[in-house]
Amino acid sequence: MTEFELIAKLTADLHTNDTVKTGAGDDCAVLDLGIPGKNLLFKSDAVVEGIHFTSETQPQKIGRKALARALSDIAAMAGTPTAAVVTIGLPQKFDADRIAAIYEGLNDTARHYNVSIVGGETTTNPERIIISIALIGLVQKKKAILRSGAKKGDAIFVTGELGGSLQGRHLDFQPRLEEARWLADNFKIHSMIDLSDGLAGDLRHLLNSSKVGAELFSPAIPISREAKLHARTESSAKPPLLAALTDGEDFELLLTIASRDAVKLLDAWKEKFQNIKLTCIGKITAETGLRLRDNEGIKPLFVHGYTHFAKP
Amino acid sequence: MTEFELIAKLTADLHTNDTVKTGAGDDCAVLDLGIPGKNLLFKSDAVVEGIHFTSETQPQKIGRKALARALSDIAAMAGTPTAAVVTIGLPQKFDADRIAAIYEGLNDTARHYNVSIVGGETTTNPERIIISIALIGLVQKKKAILRSGAKKGDAIFVTGELGGSLQGRHLDFQPRLEEARWLADNFKIHSMIDLSDGLAGDLRHLLNSSKVGAELFSPAIPISREAKLHARTESSAKPPLLAALTDGEDFELLLTIASRDAVKLLDAWKEKFQNIKLTCIGKITAETGLRLRDNEGIKPLFVHGYTHFAKP
Repeated sequence: MTEFELIAKLTADLHTNDTVKTGAGDDCAVLDLGIPGKNLLFKSDAVVEGIHFTSETQPQKIGRKALARALSDIAAMAGTPTAAVVTIGLPQKFDADRIAAIYEGLNDTARHYNVSIVGGETTTNPERIIISIALIGLVQKKKAILRSGAKKGDAIFVTGELGGSLQGRHLDFQPRLEEARWLADNFKIHSMIDLSDGLAGDLRHLLNSSKVGAELFSPAIPISREAKLHARTESSAKPPLLAALTDGEDFELLLTIASRDAVKLLDAWKEKFQNIKLTCIGKITAETGLRLRDNEGIKPLFVHGYTHFAKP
Repeated sequence: MTEFELIAKLTADLHTNDTVKTGAGDDCAVLDLGIPGKNLLFKSDAVVEGIHFTSETQPQKIGRKALARALSDIAAMAGTPTAAVVTIGLPQKFDADRIAAIYEGLNDTARHYNVSIVGGETTTNPERIIISIALIGLVQKKKAILRSGAKKGDAIFVTGELGGSLQGRHLDFQPRLEEARWLADNFKIHSMIDLSDGLAGDLRHLLNSSKVGAELFSPAIPISREAKLHARTESSAKPPLLAALTDGEDFELLLTIASRDAVKLLDAWKEKFQNIKLTCIGKITAETGLRLRDNEGIKPLFVHGYTHFAKP
């Protein structure tokens, strides 16, 4: 059973109540708690030693990454983060200075994005450090952008460059909070997701939620310098395009918009965010499934993004 | 460094913002997000295989316990739970039926208390299962009961019976949600905490928050049948009073109220909750520290409650 099959099984019949506008299955839950004009966003995410960071990772960057991952999920809904609680599991013997430095990175990131850290729970996890962050945020009513709104003919856009995140960027990526709110405020974005599992995997989540398919134009996919360099210097590395499709931990935004708005979006983006790429990489199709087109033709794409529990 | 010294170090300088009414250091955080008449409660808590349950524990009870522990924290603030997100860390090889049964217990408990489960995140934790639950709830403005309100002369009450929870009760305790809201609605409760680390440990948290001390009358402390039985049948078991003071995982309410209201509270409670004990076990003193009085005299109490990282 893969991670996503397991999640589908576990979340098939969860209890819900009338505060829930969007439950499990999107980047964040959306709850109506009676806040005038706003809905609440709610999300949790964890990093684990040996998986998301190593015992060699600079501790401040561990804390930064733990919070920034969850911030990226708030960004994917076009929300503003408010407050976080932190559960940290520690081996019985731990280096208190290292833990304090992890918290320093967490707290600096919280300050930067004006997120309150309002609870810190510690528990024992004997073999390795685990940090789970739960985050709440706010979003204007009707402005939350879901995974489920993609429509046939939409243009598919991605921010930044993809692949090779593990060469370093996974520790200091910028959650696209400002960019996502600007998108929601200025354009009718049909669907959005943040790229945590890799373009191929996360686009599939969006397509499944929207019950549509997609065709990507592979020469257009923006590949990071790190992925290209890694492919040149390491014989065992993935080819750059495959890295961009499957590496994961990019934490860029993937979004769809009616194709008639595509050029206007690109022009406005270039004026507003000169230092961050926005690239049209394909289009949404009525036919389900994911296809890759290049100058030689079109073929189905079978690779997946990163998954915790099973080989693709 | 003990768990509580570590927490104190980590939470000394956390970033906060103007939504935060009560931050880290109480049972839940209290946030004002502009909900008319209400504040938001926010909390996370984790259970770990080998610590809070074993590989032999019935899986439904694991899920139940994971959520009920967090519900008990909402109870301690006199709040009503609303929605939860679940982070579950799993070994690479896991028994999908067992995980589904854990979720079944979690979901049944959520349904019972009308808590929506609005997100399920899975990650890898190679050696053991860990489940971290983040929970939000609501509380009437000015009705949240903090740890910090205990006053000299207050009577100290505890619900239920203490000690011996590991003999079974830790898997099927009832979070005191209804009782806590009734207390807040009908009496001026000065301070409250739920008993997770044991009476001695949690009372110390409350005393430290309130900058007061306490004198407990040891013959009054309600000791559970399990703690008494365990002491009789196991030569290595703690004496029953010590079990009641230090075992932890009771998930009962500890609260203080002006002594002039004590008899009225007891009478009203007996009428309302016939099957749950409420016991006056001592009083708050201006002198700090915790003292135990019995028919032979009074002495300082040095034992602590359960702590994850260091011997008492």
